[in-house]
Order: sequence, then C-alpha cells, then structure tokens
Amino acid sequence: MERDLILGMDIGGTKLAVVLSDLKGNILRKVREPTEAEKGPDHVISKLIRMSRRLMEEAGVTADRIVGVGVSCGGPLDTKTGIVYSPPNLPGWDAVPLKSIVESELGLPAIVENDANAGALAEWMFGAGRGYSYVVYMTMGTGIGGGIVIDGKIYHGANDTAGEVGHQILLPDGPPCGCGKRGCLEALCSGPAIARRAREAVKSNPDTLILELAGGRIEEVKSEHVVEAAKKGDKLALKLIEETGWYMGWGIANMVNILNPEVVIIGTIAVAAGDLLLEPIRRTVRRMAMERAASAVKILPAQLGEYVGDLAAVSLVISNLDRLREAER
Amino acid sequence: MERDLILGMDIGGTKLAVVLSDLKGNILRKVREPTEAEKGPDHVISKLIRMSRRLMEEAGVTADRIVGVGVSCGGPLDTKTGIVYSPPNLPGWDAVPLKSIVESELGLPAIVENDANAGALAEWMFGAGRGYSYVVYMTMGTGIGGGIVIDGKIYHGANDTAGEVGHQILLPDGPPCGCGKRGCLEALCSGPAIARRAREAVKSNPDTLILELAGGRIEEVKSEHVVEAAKKGDKLALKLIEETGWYMGWGIANMVNILNPEVVIIGTIAVAAGDLLLEPIRRTVRRMAMERAASAVKILPAQLGEYVGDLAAVSLVISNLDRLREAER
Repeated sequence: MERDLILGMDIGGTKLAVVLSDLKGNILRKVREPTEAEKGPDHVISKLIRMSRRLMEEAGVTADRIVGVGVSCGGPLDTKTGIVYSPPNLPGWDAVPLKSIVESELGLPAIVENDANAGALAEWMFGAGRGYSYVVYMTMGTGIGGGIVIDGKIYHGANDTAGEVGHQILLPDGPPCGCGKRGCLEALCSGPAIARRAREAVKSNPDTLILELAGGRIEEVKSEHVVEAAKKGDKLALKLIEETGWYMGWGIANMVNILNPEVVIIGTIAVAAGDLLLEPIRRTVRRMAMERAASAVKILPAQLGEYVGDLAAVSLVISNLDRLREAER
Repeated sequence: MERDLILGMDIGGTKLAVVLSDLKGNILRKVREPTEAEKGPDHVISKLIRMSRRLMEEAGVTADRIVGVGVSCGGPLDTKTGIVYSPPNLPGWDAVPLKSIVESELGLPAIVENDANAGALAEWMFGAGRGYSYVVYMTMGTGIGGGIVIDGKIYHGANDTAGEVGHQILLPDGPPCGCGKRGCLEALCSGPAIARRAREAVKSNPDTLILELAGGRIEEVKSEHVVEAAKKGDKLALKLIEETGWYMGWGIANMVNILNPEVVIIGTIAVAAGDLLLEPIRRTVRRMAMERAASAVKILPAQLGEYVGDLAAVSLVISNLDRLREAER
C-alpha cells in the first residue's frame, strides 16, 4: 500500500504539538503538551518522540503508512543538515541535530524548517496566499518573523536566514531588540513592543480604556488591551495602532521594493486588529514603496489562525512528496 | 549554419551602444552614439536600429547569423511585453513597445531588461558574481539601482520591480529623492547625494582638498572630488566616505536580512573608492544584519567597469539561448 499519512511536529517555546494528517493536509488527530523548554533539548525531543508514538498508536497507524515528518521549529537552523542553532525561544539548543534524531528514532525521513518559513508555506498552500506566486508571510506576535514563498517553494537564501523582514533596522538609535540590535521593526511593532509603547503613552494619558482593560495597572498593559481599546474607539489606542501601522508599513514598503511580492500576509496581531491596523499599513506602503511595486501588492491578514503551526509542519511534507517518494524507491 | 552571434543594445540616458558578440560574450564589434534623449523615443529607437544595421554591415554579418537581441534599458519596464514605462533618464518614453519595435525592424527576437537587472546578470556571468547562486548587484552612480540573480536567473518579482534596494527609505524626513519620496538610500548615497552632502559640509569646513579639487568653487563639488580627496587622506572627505559607507551598510544590512545573498556587488563609486568605502560598508553590515546572514555575505566591488553595459545586453541572450533556439525551430 502506498504511504498515505503525514506526521507534523510544531515546536513552540511554550507548546508542543504533533499531528497526523492525510496527504491533503486534513488533520486527523493531534496531541499537545507543554514544551517545558527550560528542561533543555533532550527533554523536549524525547517528549516529541513519545507524543508521536502515542499518536500513531492511538490512531492505529504504523510507521509504514507515513510518508515523512515535517518539523516546524524556531530558527536559526540549517535546513540541509536539519541542525538547529540556539533559537531565542528554546534555551540550551546549541547545534542540535534535530533532523537526524527524529529520523533515527522514528525511522522516517524528516524535514526541519524555520517556523516562519513553514508558516509562509502553509498560508500559501491553505490560507491567504493560495494562487499567488510571490508570497511574503509575516508573524506579528512575540516577535516579527517572516517567510518567503516563490512559485510554491520556500526561498531560503544562502544559509537559511532569508525573510527576516522583522529585523530590518528602521531607527538605529531606537529601542533595543531581542536580537541584540536597536530599532528593528520587531522592536517597534511586536506584541511586547506595542505594549511597551502603550505603557509609556499611558503614563502621560491615564484617561484611556487601555488602562481600564489592564485592570488599572500600567505594568499589566499588553498589546491585546491596545487592540481591544482601539476597537472600542479609544483615542490613545487608535493613535498607537496608527503608529504601529506606520512602522509596519515603512518596513513592508522597503521589503516590497526589494522583493516585489504579490501578497504580504500578516498574522496574529494584524488578524486581531483587522483593518484598524491593516489600513494604515496599506496607506503607508502606497506612500513609501515605489509606485509600480506598491500597485502590485495586496496586504492581507493571515487565514490559518491557531492552525498555522499544524499546517506549517504538514505542508513541509506535502511540498516534498515527490522527493520523499523518490527517495523511498 | 547554426546562428552564432548576438546583438546587444545598451540604452543609457546620455550614450547608446550596440555591440556584436559571439555566444561566449566576446565583444567583436561596437558602435556608440549620443542618445540625444531629449529628442524622444522615436529618434532614439530609429538611431538604435540604424546603428545595428550599420554594425552588421560593417562586420559582414547577416541577420540569419544572429540568435537574438539583448536590450538593456532604464526601467520601469515589463519584461514579458517588452514595454518601457517612463524611465527617469529617458524623457517622453511612455509605454513604448520597445521589444516589438526592435523585433519587427530587425526581424530577430529581442529580450528587453531593466539595466540594473541586466548588469546583475552580467556580473554573475562574467564578473564578481561568478560561481555564486545568490547575487545582488547595486549600481552606485547617478542613482542606486539593484538587480537580483538567483541560481543564474534574474529575479523579477510580481511585476518586474524587484531589486530596488536603493529606494528603501532610511530617513522618512530625509533629503528628497529623484523618485519623489524622501530619505531613500539613493537620496543619501548616489553620486549627486554625496556631492550634495559634501557641498554642505564644505561650507563650514572650507579648508579641505575637496574644495581645491573642485577649483575652489563649492557649486562644482562632485562625488569624484570627495573620493579623490579621501584617497589623499583629506579628513573631511574621509568622514563623508565613512558616512556614506554607514548609510550603504545600513541599507545593505536590511536587504541582507531579507534576501540572505552570498554576495553583494557594488558598482562605479564603490569601485572608484575601493576599500575606503567598502570597509565601512562591511563593518556596518556585520553590525546591523543578523549574525548568520551577515556571516554568509561578501561585499565586493563590481568587476566589469565600463563594459558592464555591453555585457549586460549580451548576457540576456546568452542566458536565454535554449529558449531562443527552441522558438526558432
């Protein structure tokens, strides 16, 4: 019988998921556990392997029905060797040979990919990027990651670091970024960055719904409060979202001039805020990018929501089906 | 007999060149004339056609020996239709069907390409980009253009505007750019931009070799004087070059984070200034780009110098030989 199933692993900083899907990406079964990243790579990886075995057992599926394992994980990592190098959300991972461990433990071929790249592939295959040949996907949550899909293939660049739109520097003397530099787009527009800007603004404008939603405690202000307050028409919150849209639009315009994509898909915060954030982004891109490039690009919210991680992992195998089947022969 | 020659046209704002080459890019013969761009597209194109016919006649070559015509021209343009849309250096060109005119006049297939893209292809094929799979080429003269060559093919993006590294905005309130926006990399680091910054600096620092080289007249200061003075150790000139390197490095770092190239090749001013400019660029890229991407990229001077235009035009045909031969059958 021909192999007809896929195993997908989504390794996040707080949650692990392993899913079983068919070759069309229909998720048949899923298990989840906390990552407990602080316990280090050995702990996390053996847990993933146990989760995989349990999942297959519960589904009554043996390894010989599985085409391959797609693994979506924080980068930097090397997609050829499958070695993962110190992702910021996985402390202690230093040159972990994730691909070869998964392959030898499960006896199946594995494809290891940076989560933003895999998310881009999933949005192209199943989400807002369907039908487009030049796709950029940007995560907008704890950080701002990015992935590029050209003609249905992830664009990796020379050593798998392409697509880091979030670490372009806009303000060289700006706020510090998690990456160690200053004034990256991420340091201005990620969830924590929006919260930081909001906390500063609330200090001199305490009469705002943002503060109320945070229970009156400035130190509790989060980007979610800003989005919620903006939706209810709070003036300060709207200003903060407008400002966020301006920085995002600036960064995206620069990227649009370089890559000339058909579509830029933005996740999480952009999905939550919708046009309140997307419109200022679109306006800024039209103003700051070259006219012809700006006219070619759509700025859209991501469509896969909480399923992006599962589909990211699975899409890696789907887009390599021919190669995996070839290798099997 | 199999077709064994190539015709190349290089359409610049001040000079036109038509060359005849063999299939390896050896230039066999060349004619040049002033563009007289102010006389409009009909004048320029009929001159190009006359130059081509004269060149073939002088070389004793008939059209049936020519595989195709490569045309390198200022953009924006559409490479599929070969229609050219108002390049800044060619006034009055508004939706000129350059490809079909050349094809019908000469009875040969033509490939029309943006000059920066064609230059990138030539540097990849014959110059500093040989052997690399991820190549970015930047012109650094009157403007700052860019072209991307991935796996030996020009990366065009959705509508042929990819590679505009020079129009990323670094300082939204910065000096006006020829493109109509403010603070583009080009508005800070092109030849005229360097000259403008130099003239401002010379006002308060008249005791500089820059002014001497410009014959004592501030309004005559050009980027060439800055480069020459810097080479002779002039302090103000060195500071201006260092500053130029910092802006270039910043813009290149942002692009490196997005594209993750193996090599960034910079033309004209970077070639003239050499390491005096390239070293501050390299230093800034190392500091401002993500570590893994920065470690993968070499910043090199262009190698083709004054031949880049000829080879740009010719390389378009060489990289499409199979397709052109196929079409002929």
